[in-house]
Amino acid sequence: MALMSSNTEGPLQHARSMALGIGGAESNVAIALARLGTPITWIGRVGDDSLGDLVLREIRAEGVQVIGIRDPEAPTGMMVKERRTHSETRVWYYRRGNAGSRLTADDIDPALIQNASLLHLTGITPALSASAAEATFEALRIAKAAGVTVSFDLNFRGKLWSREQARQVYRRILPDVDLVFAGDDEASIAVGEADAPITLAHRLIDAGAGQSVVKLGEHGAVAVVDGVEYQRDAIRIRPTDTVGAGDGFVAGYLADYLLGADVPTRLTTAVSVGAYACLVPGDWEGMPRRSELAGLTAREPVSR
Amino acid sequence: MALMSSNTEGPLQHARSMALGIGGAESNVAIALARLGTPITWIGRVGDDSLGDLVLREIRAEGVQVIGIRDPEAPTGMMVKERRTHSETRVWYYRRGNAGSRLTADDIDPALIQNASLLHLTGITPALSASAAEATFEALRIAKAAGVTVSFDLNFRGKLWSREQARQVYRRILPDVDLVFAGDDEASIAVGEADAPITLAHRLIDAGAGQSVVKLGEHGAVAVVDGVEYQRDAIRIRPTDTVGAGDGFVAGYLADYLLGADVPTRLTTAVSVGAYACLVPGDWEGMPRRSELAGLTAREPVSR
Amino acid sequence: MALMSSNTEGPLQHARSMALGIGGAESNVAIALARLGTPITWIGRVGDDSLGDLVLREIRAEGVQVIGIRDPEAPTGMMVKERRTHSETRVWYYRRGNAGSRLTADDIDPALIQNASLLHLTGITPALSASAAEATFEALRIAKAAGVTVSFDLNFRGKLWSREQARQVYRRILPDVDLVFAGDDEASIAVGEADAPITLAHRLIDAGAGQSVVKLGEHGAVAVVDGVEYQRDAIRIRPTDTVGAGDGFVAGYLADYLLGADVPTRLTTAVSVGAYACLVPGDWEGMPRRSELAGLTAREPVSR
Amino acid sequence: MALMSSNTEGPLQHARSMALGIGGAESNVAIALARLGTPITWIGRVGDDSLGDLVLREIRAEGVQVIGIRDPEAPTGMMVKERRTHSETRVWYYRRGNAGSRLTADDIDPALIQNASLLHLTGITPALSASAAEATFEALRIAKAAGVTVSFDLNFRGKLWSREQARQVYRRILPDVDLVFAGDDEASIAVGEADAPITLAHRLIDAGAGQSVVKLGEHGAVAVVDGVEYQRDAIRIRPTDTVGAGDGFVAGYLADYLLGADVPTRLTTAVSVGAYACLVPGDWEGMPRRSELAGLTAREPVSR
Amino acid sequence: MALMSSNTEGPLQHARSMALGIGGAESNVAIALARLGTPITWIGRVGDDSLGDLVLREIRAEGVQVIGIRDPEAPTGMMVKERRTHSETRVWYYRRGNAGSRLTADDIDPALIQNASLLHLTGITPALSASAAEATFEALRIAKAAGVTVSFDLNFRGKLWSREQARQVYRRILPDVDLVFAGDDEASIAVGEADAPITLAHRLIDAGAGQSVVKLGEHGAVAVVDGVEYQRDAIRIRPTDTVGAGDGFVAGYLADYLLGADVPTRLTTAVSVGAYACLVPGDWEGMPRRSELAGLTAREPVSR
Amino acid sequence: MALMSSNTEGPLQHARSMALGIGGAESNVAIALARLGTPITWIGRVGDDSLGDLVLREIRAEGVQVIGIRDPEAPTGMMVKERRTHSETRVWYYRRGNAGSRLTADDIDPALIQNASLLHLTGITPALSASAAEATFEALRIAKAAGVTVSFDLNFRGKLWSREQARQVYRRILPDVDLVFAGDDEASIAVGEADAPITLAHRLIDAGAGQSVVKLGEHGAVAVVDGVEYQRDAIRIRPTDTVGAGDGFVAGYLADYLLGADVPTRLTTAVSVGAYACLVPGDWEGMPRRSELAGLTAREPVSR
Repeated sequence: MALMSSNTEGPLQHARSMALGIGGAESNVAIALARLGTPITWIGRVGDDSLGDLVLREIRAEGVQVIGIRDPEAPTGMMVKERRTHSETRVWYYRRGNAGSRLTADDIDPALIQNASLLHLTGITPALSASAAEATFEALRIAKAAGVTVSFDLNFRGKLWSREQARQVYRRILPDVDLVFAGDDEASIAVGEADAPITLAHRLIDAGAGQSVVKLGEHGAVAVVDGVEYQRDAIRIRPTDTVGAGDGFVAGYLADYLLGADVPTRLTTAVSVGAYACLVPGDWEGMPRRSELAGLTAREPVSR
Repeated sequence: MALMSSNTEGPLQHARSMALGIGGAESNVAIALARLGTPITWIGRVGDDSLGDLVLREIRAEGVQVIGIRDPEAPTGMMVKERRTHSETRVWYYRRGNAGSRLTADDIDPALIQNASLLHLTGITPALSASAAEATFEALRIAKAAGVTVSFDLNFRGKLWSREQARQVYRRILPDVDLVFAGDDEASIAVGEADAPITLAHRLIDAGAGQSVVKLGEHGAVAVVDGVEYQRDAIRIRPTDTVGAGDGFVAGYLADYLLGADVPTRLTTAVSVGAYACLVPGDWEGMPRRSELAGLTAREPVSR
Repeated sequence: MALMSSNTEGPLQHARSMALGIGGAESNVAIALARLGTPITWIGRVGDDSLGDLVLREIRAEGVQVIGIRDPEAPTGMMVKERRTHSETRVWYYRRGNAGSRLTADDIDPALIQNASLLHLTGITPALSASAAEATFEALRIAKAAGVTVSFDLNFRGKLWSREQARQVYRRILPDVDLVFAGDDEASIAVGEADAPITLAHRLIDAGAGQSVVKLGEHGAVAVVDGVEYQRDAIRIRPTDTVGAGDGFVAGYLADYLLGADVPTRLTTAVSVGAYACLVPGDWEGMPRRSELAGLTAREPVSR
Repeated sequence: MALMSSNTEGPLQHARSMALGIGGAESNVAIALARLGTPITWIGRVGDDSLGDLVLREIRAEGVQVIGIRDPEAPTGMMVKERRTHSETRVWYYRRGNAGSRLTADDIDPALIQNASLLHLTGITPALSASAAEATFEALRIAKAAGVTVSFDLNFRGKLWSREQARQVYRRILPDVDLVFAGDDEASIAVGEADAPITLAHRLIDAGAGQSVVKLGEHGAVAVVDGVEYQRDAIRIRPTDTVGAGDGFVAGYLADYLLGADVPTRLTTAVSVGAYACLVPGDWEGMPRRSELAGLTAREPVSR
Repeated sequence: MALMSSNTEGPLQHARSMALGIGGAESNVAIALARLGTPITWIGRVGDDSLGDLVLREIRAEGVQVIGIRDPEAPTGMMVKERRTHSETRVWYYRRGNAGSRLTADDIDPALIQNASLLHLTGITPALSASAAEATFEALRIAKAAGVTVSFDLNFRGKLWSREQARQVYRRILPDVDLVFAGDDEASIAVGEADAPITLAHRLIDAGAGQSVVKLGEHGAVAVVDGVEYQRDAIRIRPTDTVGAGDGFVAGYLADYLLGADVPTRLTTAVSVGAYACLVPGDWEGMPRRSELAGLTAREPVSR
Repeated sequence: MALMSSNTEGPLQHARSMALGIGGAESNVAIALARLGTPITWIGRVGDDSLGDLVLREIRAEGVQVIGIRDPEAPTGMMVKERRTHSETRVWYYRRGNAGSRLTADDIDPALIQNASLLHLTGITPALSASAAEATFEALRIAKAAGVTVSFDLNFRGKLWSREQARQVYRRILPDVDLVFAGDDEASIAVGEADAPITLAHRLIDAGAGQSVVKLGEHGAVAVVDGVEYQRDAIRIRPTDTVGAGDGFVAGYLADYLLGADVPTRLTTAVSVGAYACLVPGDWEGMPRRSELAGLTAREPVSR
């Protein structure tokens, strides 16, 4: 998606100019993975217009392999971002009816998935339209058939669908998922509210996921892997812009998972990438290269 | 509509920042009229969002009375503008499904029209959606019933509907219109192609309009009023940005029509406002106050 | 007044560009009231120049009814603002001899005041010139004669007059004032220094005001209304730009006063608007709409 | 003077930001002379404020020796510039009552003038105030007494005084002037209208000047020196910003005069500097170094 | 190379800010080819620094396959660009001793060349250093051995070496070159001055090149292919920025050469791409996609 | 040196534009001294290019007497600055081979040094090249011969030479130095590591310096003068940009040294200037005038 964000704080009506960039949870994760050194391919549908050119060029620039389906009939999705105050951001989506929502199962190239090590899906795609939901299910089906690992981030977006609609889709997807990521509120949509995040992590596994990670923002994360519970504190920083931190977290975890690292290492990388992403304005611009992580990573062991 | 336009020439993917403003033929005409000293009210539907705040504040700022219907369900319409080269502009609309297209007949306050001297309509509104077309027809019906003068600018937008769809609506509206404005290509959609613009002007009257003005850009304009033909050359200038010139032309004509000026005077004011609008970047920002016209207005009489 | 403020911190000589906007305690209060939903009219004198156009358009944009007297002889007042460091702002006025200072009693339309619910005056206007002081007194006289409520903010400006000059005018105005607002230092100009702000509030009433509110910035405010003392803490925030907070406070108090709210509610709204105004750069750009206040307003009751 | 100019074309009310710089005929001439390699001292009065710091630093930066009198009582003069269209600039002065207008005869250091080769005065200074006029006359008196060459540019400013007021001062100054520069309209203020510029040049000498140069913008210049008439065409360029061209012309003439060059050479340098100044936005920023002139200077001889 | 260019016209000392981008004849050609739909790989050496990241990301973004050798010892090459006037650009190189100049024969992957359809070299690389010259010769040797077509653009840079030094290298390279491109002045360095460009084209073939194209800017181009002479006029446009036009020309010719088009078609595409590149500020940003060419391409046949 | 710094936080590849300015420890100290009222001359070598013009104009603007040697053969040195996060700055130098590094002993005008009260040298100059080192030694020799006080700031730059290379030059220079300034790590290069800063200060004197000051950033400074130890805390501020603080410290100390102030006063001024410099972005732009110091200077006595 293209992203217009105001360059200054305050109501958008006083914005002198808007920065033009791109955003979206999937491309954030893809870019963060590429910066961490993981070979990665991104698939998406954009309009046959200049904002579509922009989206594809920016993802490609970051070293991500890009499969960009161009839709001649609909414009590229867009979001508009206002920084109302230093601590309050507002976002409006121009997403429904636009190219991204017109993704269909036919847009999915089976070979691409079959030859991958891992397929990462988000809960945003199925929320966009019926055909995009079908594309998600089709990708999932292909991956399972080919034995490809599947990761899934719930990424609930309240402007796109209701919690009940989301719950039904989450429950349909979870049984086929190897790794699931969710914020605590997102997890509770899928598996009901609970007092402790670790309870949510267990319930996600009960719902069918292979392993589960519950992201807790400045409170770190908990995970359940092979029946073992893990807890990891966040790295203490002074955040500039927290948007994209969750995507960085997921990328950090996946990058280390693919390298065969153990769970504490994955979580350490995950919170480090998430923290780094908060140090710079922009949804993904601050994502770190692996060489940059050292300065941030806390040394204390993860409790288990 | 909100308007994002690149601050520099070239493909949008290289734009460092976008200027945020507003645009739209109706608000352009309204603002130009206000600057010329004509009391004017603008009615429109925008989202209950920050871009909606922007649209309403900018029109209000110009001294236009604003009736802004806020739509809690849909975002404010938007357009994105690229200056591909110094002489080529590209525009993409985020208009369908957005607040402006959800205008309905219920949004029209009859008293407002009944108490006006003139109702100005454009051919953009009926192209947005079925309900917006209904709102147009309803406004027209109220005006006719109350004996209020109606002006209509065809304003064909090829991205919103086909020429055939437009033709049918134009033909339905024209019999109820007192003043019609059209570019020569637009006129030919309504009344068929012709060798000479003046032929188009006559045919618009044959189709039911009271008087007709065919806008010819740098070639000026022709008009047929009370059976008399008029021709007016454009004012020779070095244009910076021609977008909005047609709307300035219409405002100039209407302002003087409402003052009771004769046709040559109206046309002189029309081409002057149109020319002035071209001297400054932006769709409407350069619209002149009446005191600024003197410097530009050519002295030669209009031929008749 | 027009307002030029540097876009970056540091000595003005290194400013790469200046933001052009408007400022002034009266327009700040007017805009804040309009955003809170209070119908409001602003009267002022500006030059017949482009900066005058700017001042009027920006106030009008915010939904304030604007009575702008254009002075063909003098330029619009201006102020220049430097952010020397993140915590130190310097301001220079180009105000004397300019249009605003040439306001006269003749500029005041009696009917406008007679039909209002409340007349708000500041101590800046009488400091500008003898004729502007006369205009202030005349407005006051009209309001009293018509039984219109008068509010007055002392708004001492040391660059415009001495403390002694200010004191004399304050003492002349206070007996005719229904609501008076003052910072603690300002109050001490009018009624002498005191150990406790509440003492100042009492003395303002002794000097003739109907009710008094002493603004204490990050320490909140105290008030005396109908002989009862009120105290209200400020809302704890991380301020970005404190200029305009006092004006937002006054607007919050007046908006709720006009709605018939009780004193604790008025003070809560006042500190909330004041706090919100500090969250965004600019004198008035951050003023909140009523719907935005909820997030900020502290729940604890005002002590009395 | 400080100078705020809009960064974009159009009414100032739409300016997103203003460039902050300096301007003024005297500093333009001084800077152009310094760039041409002429040692030069500039004397002026500015406020003891940040804009005063700016004015002094920018002139000093250009290699001009700066005598800056700081006025603790009044702010630095300012002008505001709007580019209404690409070919129309509007300027508003905040000059009266400000520091520059408070120049007095006491600010003039006699030794500075006595040791100079040439004293350059403009007709702006005496228009600012009575005391500034006195300072001008005092400088003139000192120079004459010491046998220092005096040059004078009429520089009529209609916003500061009337043509009749200007005429009286011009006539008082001209008898003591060795070189006088004037545009043709300015010359006609001093010596009455005439059909041919060369007639004006002769009349300026009749009024007491030693030699006279009449600047004709894109039509070049004429001069009368030692009874001989000279005519010089302008250099044909595509101008970007003509403000400052006249000051560049004067500097070019004076620089070569001080080097002892003959009149045709002086005029060639004058029109070259004037042309170069037009190639860049800004009043003085585009002034050329001597090494840059070669590319522009036309080769054809001056007619005499 | 990284490229810093001033955002405004005038001496760099007055630049308020610099645009940061990339430049270089090789990347310009690569990007233009990619936009025309030709698969292309770019090889270069940059520092292991942020400007190196920038260079690689921008070329990659355009769909060029990038082989970026990172040099841990030297910074990425840079150039600084001043727009002194609207028609005069000045460039300073920070190139010697930087990463690009440290290219060595070892950096060349033989397989990459052996599998290509065409190897494009410029005369800039051998001018940077002895090792870079060796790399050029090595690439040439590999291509010849593998029967890969070689194209060569003389691209003389007077700040890097003398005409005599360049001539010797050109003469060494030309016998191994299948297609040579040269401006007329560049050609005369290699083969001596001549009255007619077509003579230069013949002499380049005499010097060993397979076919030759002499670029003549606004005068079009001449070519000699298989003994036949071709001449092609330029497309008449109003240029905004001519830098990069020659690189666009080369890309247009090569793109069509690789598609098997005849010489007149190649030249038409070449002048069209060159013209398009001039319509937008920036060295390469305005390079057209193939679909954009239609509007510009003149219809008249190439004379032969 | 010219200085390009990104206007926004994040990787340089996302910088929308770069601010163009100047930097360098020597000019920072010179400018800070000028602002404190100390007459000061700066000598340096820059290219005969626009960046050289910039460097000289900016230093001159600040009231520093500038001796600028123009090098026709090499470009002006440059540095590129990235703000990777709000708390991490990265700098790349384009310094070797550029004009500054080509300073030679011949560039030193003996009279200039002989007539000065104090010669300030930095450890950067000898690190640039052999000839620049010679120039440093020559200046030192002239000063000693003339009995001129010499101050020296070690200013170690790890990108220019090794610690061992630096150590040898420091040891050669120290015996001729009257005042030496060093950070604690820099001091340890010269005299070996030590537990306490005061030990380093003593050892610098043992190595030949007359008096020594060890700068400790936010921990203040220690000094040994005439065998007496001094300690001074830093002033507690919220820093915006700490670059240049050390140079401000040195300037503050030297300014008061030259006024004959006692050591505690010098240290108080030093930490005040250093603190002030941190309050504004930029290496030197925030340096205070003496009148601005009062607000910051802590009152507590220096311990001795």
